[in-house]
Amino acid sequence: MKGFLISFEGIDGSGKSTQARKLYEFLKEEGYEVSLYRDPGSTPLAEQIRELIINYAMDPITELLLFESARSSLVWEKIFPDLTSGKIVIVDRFIDSTTAYQGYGREINLGTVSILNHIATRGRKPDLTFILNLPLELALHRLKEQKTKFEEPNYLKRVRDGYLQIFYSEKERDIRLIDASRSEEEVFEEIKTITLGKLKVL
Amino acid sequence: MKGFLISFEGIDGSGKSTQARKLYEFLKEEGYEVSLYRDPGSTPLAEQIRELIINYAMDPITELLLFESARSSLVWEKIFPDLTSGKIVIVDRFIDSTTAYQGYGREINLGTVSILNHIATRGRKPDLTFILNLPLELALHRLKEQKTKFEEPNYLKRVRDGYLQIFYSEKERDIRLIDASRSEEEVFEEIKTITLGKLKVL
Ligand SMILES: Nc1ncnc2c1ncn2[C@@H]1O[C@H](COP(=O)(O)OP(=O)(O)O)[C@@H](O)[C@H]1O
Ligand SMILES: Nc1ncnc2c1ncn2[C@@H]1O[C@H](COP(=O)(O)OP(=O)(O)O)[C@@H](O)[C@H]1O
Ligand SMILES: [Mg+2]
Ligand SMILES: [Mg+2]
Repeated sequence: MKGFLISFEGIDGSGKSTQARKLYEFLKEEGYEVSLYRDPGSTPLAEQIRELIINYAMDPITELLLFESARSSLVWEKIFPDLTSGKIVIVDRFIDSTTAYQGYGREINLGTVSILNHIATRGRKPDLTFILNLPLELALHRLKEQKTKFEEPNYLKRVRDGYLQIFYSEKERDIRLIDASRSEEEVFEEIKTITLGKLKVL
Repeated sequence: MKGFLISFEGIDGSGKSTQARKLYEFLKEEGYEVSLYRDPGSTPLAEQIRELIINYAMDPITELLLFESARSSLVWEKIFPDLTSGKIVIVDRFIDSTTAYQGYGREINLGTVSILNHIATRGRKPDLTFILNLPLELALHRLKEQKTKFEEPNYLKRVRDGYLQIFYSEKERDIRLIDASRSEEEVFEEIKTITLGKLKVL
């Protein structure tokens, strides 16, 4: 499979959607064939599954399985065809969100999460991952301005620490820890430089 | 966990829903505390997931993950609480349907199916399983009268053979292969006798 898969990760308010879109627009301008998806979502079925996750209270294992169902749909319907045709694919959240939120956050066995990530993605890992890292307080502050609801602080702390664990442990992957407390433009400058560096050696 | 979990398995038209309901009514009459569920379904969330499975075309892995999501919801919301309070729980389809349809039928790796069954059920296996066995032609004949849509014959043949493989290989479980080509009453007589025999030694 050709193509290049880039994932944006981090807690809510860290700037994933902002930076993913900026990178998408930039690469398009540069003449690359590029797609932007959100996970969960971006297929009609996955968007329906996303609605179920939002609208029903459920136990963590059911939630995990639904996230993986949505991911499987996105991978099969969109990401694989795009990669096969040589596109750059950008995803706003992907497997590391499940490890951080369901694994570290909800404390589901990490092996279970890892197996499910593998099944849903058929083992395809991102070629490049940006973890947007910033203090919880700053993320919560950004979100409060948006009036977005947010989760219990101890849970969020485990999620944020989970992302750091992923960064320090998954050495076979290319994961970049980005200081997301800076301005949008400063953050994007770093992301752009890293991405172009990787694309040039392809 | 006390309680007693009974699953009904077999291809469409084999008489699962008919026999599950007969057993449910009979055991209630006998004074047992008993619940009857269908899988997928029987919780508000699982019924929604069932609708998605019916209404969207999807790849086999996504379908597998959705079946397991619905099962996890049913197990967590209904089956575990019922078993804990000592009830007999009857399910119309359960883990063996996934092994037969997604594993043998859709030819997904059996280890993958087995792991997902384990995750969704937290490893809880049925205490007693009835596989209603009958020739494909007879099942299709029964369904044609109902105008139910049915699947491609080669696929259905793999499913039916899959059920036999489960019967012959899962020796640590109590699985009974029932000749379902007989009348409703004859089939039920055998199911009733087996069930009462098991319940008496509890
Ligand atoms: N570097 C930044 N500095 C300040 N605010 C930012 C920055 N990046 C994004 N924001 C704002 O923070 C909020 C959350 O950003 P968003 O990209 O939606 O984050 P996420 O997708 O990670 O939840 C938005 O209101 C966004 O405009
Ligand atoms: N033993 C039987 N002999 C003939 N018809 C039967 C028998 N058991 C059930 N049926 C009929 O066959 C159809 C399918 O039965 P059903 O219990 O719905 O099967 P399943 O739930 O396995 O698909 C129904 O119309 C039912 O009335
Ligand atoms: Mg976002
Ligand atoms: Mg039925």
